[in-house]
Amino acid sequence: MELPPSSAKRYYWEDFPVGLVIPLGSTTVTREAVLAFAGQFDPQPFHLDDAAAEASLFKKLSASGWHTCSMTMRLMCDGYLNDSAALGSPGVDELRWLKPVYPGDTISAEMSVLESRVMNSKPHVGLVRSRWRVFNQDGADVMTMQGWGMFAVRQRT
Amino acid sequence: MELPPSSAKRYYWEDFPVGLVIPLGSTTVTREAVLAFAGQFDPQPFHLDDAAAEASLFKKLSASGWHTCSMTMRLMCDGYLNDSAALGSPGVDELRWLKPVYPGDTISAEMSVLESRVMNSKPHVGLVRSRWRVFNQDGADVMTMQGWGMFAVRQRT
Repeated sequence: MELPPSSAKRYYWEDFPVGLVIPLGSTTVTREAVLAFAGQFDPQPFHLDDAAAEASLFKKLSASGWHTCSMTMRLMCDGYLNDSAALGSPGVDELRWLKPVYPGDTISAEMSVLESRVMNSKPHVGLVRSRWRVFNQDGADVMTMQGWGMFAVRQRT
Repeated sequence: MELPPSSAKRYYWEDFPVGLVIPLGSTTVTREAVLAFAGQFDPQPFHLDDAAAEASLFKKLSASGWHTCSMTMRLMCDGYLNDSAALGSPGVDELRWLKPVYPGDTISAEMSVLESRVMNSKPHVGLVRSRWRVFNQDGADVMTMQGWGMFAVRQRT
């Protein structure tokens, strides 16, 4: 594996110690974005049509859960990943859609580091297990998840 | 909760028994779609730039894992959800991005029912725990996940 040049990034695996909490900013969800995402990827009636949404468990038109995941990913990229020697992720656990995200909502996210270790098979790659919390303008959690990220270990020269 | 009219849908909770396997069709991933999704939601260099991708663990430009989730959601909608009295999902577990999805790949998906029960608190809502397997044109699994879906129980009249 070739590592990215160590001069190019600000944060490496060592910069994500257990207990670190990083606020990830916020984004406001427009009706147009909700409809565009749902139309492309999740065309269930309650994500596309007001009347169907009112008759659903969500009561109002709401964003696809995958749209919330994708918006959260953008907050992660802008908040720390694109300043980091990030190498991808093997996956996510305990993804929970706790409350609907409605057009006009402003969602914010926060990342907390739960666990950290260097890979046995690749000592230049560190794993970071994090929890992400996504909450709306009323402070109510709308989504949570946990997952592993891979980061380059800082090269000692 | 108001249920959708029972005449409107073909499949209800009873139609997803444990052991059922549903093939969900396939979709071909274009370079334009990979770049558009990544530009909007996951602007990490290895999802946007060929040189950065070559230097990464993925070796070539690859789709955001959330793009793969979203494309899979579309296969689910077209494959069974939009013919079903589907009421949403509380979440997903063990989402694993096993291999990169590259532009030009054709991904297919398959849903298997693992567990099924009626909600204690809402006897007109049934829960179905499923496993989704997403694989490429070479038969290699690129993503797997498990999750619960909610479906209306067929109304006995």
